[in-house]
Amino acid sequence: MTDLILYIANKNYSSWSFRPWIALTAAGIPFREELIPFGPGATHPRFRELSPTGKVPVLHHGQVRVWESLAIIEYVAELYPDARLWPADRENRSLARSISMEMLSGFRALRSACPMNLRRPVKAIPLPEGVSGDVARIETIWREMLKRSGGPFLFGAFSAADAMFAPVVNRFAAYDLVRDADTIAYTDAMRAHPAWRAWETAALAEPWIVPEDEA
Amino acid sequence: MTDLILYIANKNYSSWSFRPWIALTAAGIPFREELIPFGPGATHPRFRELSPTGKVPVLHHGQVRVWESLAIIEYVAELYPDARLWPADRENRSLARSISMEMLSGFRALRSACPMNLRRPVKAIPLPEGVSGDVARIETIWREMLKRSGGPFLFGAFSAADAMFAPVVNRFAAYDLVRDADTIAYTDAMRAHPAWRAWETAALAEPWIVPEDEA
Repeated sequence: MTDLILYIANKNYSSWSFRPWIALTAAGIPFREELIPFGPGATHPRFRELSPTGKVPVLHHGQVRVWESLAIIEYVAELYPDARLWPADRENRSLARSISMEMLSGFRALRSACPMNLRRPVKAIPLPEGVSGDVARIETIWREMLKRSGGPFLFGAFSAADAMFAPVVNRFAAYDLVRDADTIAYTDAMRAHPAWRAWETAALAEPWIVPEDEA
Repeated sequence: MTDLILYIANKNYSSWSFRPWIALTAAGIPFREELIPFGPGATHPRFRELSPTGKVPVLHHGQVRVWESLAIIEYVAELYPDARLWPADRENRSLARSISMEMLSGFRALRSACPMNLRRPVKAIPLPEGVSGDVARIETIWREMLKRSGGPFLFGAFSAADAMFAPVVNRFAAYDLVRDADTIAYTDAMRAHPAWRAWETAALAEPWIVPEDEA
């Protein structure tokens, strides 16, 4: 029995939900999942009751409320230090946090033009300004981290940093954005991970359509 | 002698630089500061040599490079646990991280319309859509944290969370955005902090003008 409850939205679309979910699932941390599908406007009145921001994901732990995908991961990393959500080595951990926060705060062009959508057939779209620069920077980050670690994940074993980039792995595939062999090898490793496959299977079974996220 | 070097840009304008600088300074952590003023386009060729993102702030610690304002703070918090950059209590620490990451990833309307500018005479501007919602949410965050802690800072003593909101304190003042007495009391406490005053004094003495940030 666990006392962590992670509230999330649609697995097909909610990139912010995907990050803490895959981090906790891949690390084997026990939690209860509560999925509330987006209503009109890609929101839901219950989000306001559950989370100070009116958004999901939000983690409930007794009376404690933790919001923002990466803050949830940090909180659980402190609760379960042996689960190694972050790399054990200090330099690697600092790199993992730097790239995770770069993801959290940036890449707006890519995120806006190419919403996560696991069900989407692969199809390129005309790319607004800024997207190709975002893609190139993300490929550089992955290449450098994989070179340091030897892969298959950014710091060897699956970590919080991979979780933060998981939605991008879908974006790269669904909008046909990448060709580089190293990039493809990493995205293949991500998509073969049991936690990824569990999320994807559930996403594909969802009946809901969010028009705002169908690019 | 310290082996931490924090590379920053103009104190008058660089909100991202301000955050780790004030966090480390307020906590009494020894570091060497290297300021490289923005050139044309609010960037500088040296940023690319110093930082993987081509942006500042970036922290150098021997061969280690840490970028993103909050990742720098996390790294130094691990190096100097006794400096208490984060609140000691786990629930407070999770709240501090949640609101710090909300700041890191959000409030785009406010940040875009009202650039940090310490030298700017107080003057209201027409506010684009979204700014008043950003201001209201930040005031709610502050009110709730100050009610929990009793102030004068968000978690009682100055912490990383205050550092993350420091640039907003200037925005609220310079663009005449707030009236609430609790908000003003908090911004007054921030602006009276010795670390704030040291940064502000240096900012006001800078000769450089960045046209992009003169709203």
